[in-house]
Amino acid sequence: MTTTAAETLSVVVEREISFPPEKIWRALTQPHLIEEWLMKNDFKPVVGHSFSLRGDWGGVLDCEVLAVEPNRMLSYTWNFKHDDAAYNLRSVVTFTLTPTGRGTHLRMEQSGFRPEQKQAYGGAHAGWQKFFANLDQLLARAD
Amino acid sequence: MTTTAAETLSVVVEREISFPPEKIWRALTQPHLIEEWLMKNDFKPVVGHSFSLRGDWGGVLDCEVLAVEPNRMLSYTWNFKHDDAAYNLRSVVTFTLTPTGRGTHLRMEQSGFRPEQKQAYGGAHAGWQKFFANLDQLLARAD
Repeated sequence: MTTTAAETLSVVVEREISFPPEKIWRALTQPHLIEEWLMKNDFKPVVGHSFSLRGDWGGVLDCEVLAVEPNRMLSYTWNFKHDDAAYNLRSVVTFTLTPTGRGTHLRMEQSGFRPEQKQAYGGAHAGWQKFFANLDQLLARAD
Repeated sequence: MTTTAAETLSVVVEREISFPPEKIWRALTQPHLIEEWLMKNDFKPVVGHSFSLRGDWGGVLDCEVLAVEPNRMLSYTWNFKHDDAAYNLRSVVTFTLTPTGRGTHLRMEQSGFRPEQKQAYGGAHAGWQKFFANLDQLLARAD
């Protein structure tokens, strides 16, 4: 068997949220709201827009918007450049919103972790738990 | 007037903590404790040791221990390499512990922000508030 594409791993987080997709979409796409649950940013919901996500401690992610379907799907690159291959990350984050009888099913997939990037992969698991906890709090108090 | 050295800015945070320096020193120098209040790491309290601080979202800081005086002073570089000069950070973090009648005066200075790095500087202010809040919680529950 010939394998030309390298296997990569994804982190997937899914949540049932008791708010409509339109409200969640605002939290995913408005910079001042993104900052409250994720990171400081210069996001715009425009395909091809390059932006950064900035951690408080000086670290920066390089991102580019790949796909925008209002209230349904948002996808962007989530890249971190580093000389050490263990930390050099090229990944894609995709949010999918599906309306349910009670609100919205929100799915987040971050794909692109190489099998040897165990630390980054494990860290992303922990990180998204925190980000989604922040998002829950934001949605509970936001209009 | 000729100025050859570039001016840099520092973030300084000071706290009065009701625990002795020895307990705070452990939180500053033991990797599993550092992880609880700051970030994942491979720190060792040895001058010249290179280590990384790893954010959950895949970002990494490159660090090197500069000075270790047990229970009194700890200093290390806190660098972030980025092609964009606005984000490229070369800084030094220094913790100073002074015993007081009631516990310890803890001072943290992060120096090296260039005047134009307003975002990184402002972010560090916010970041250290969070880190020190985490440290307070850790100290309250740790032996």
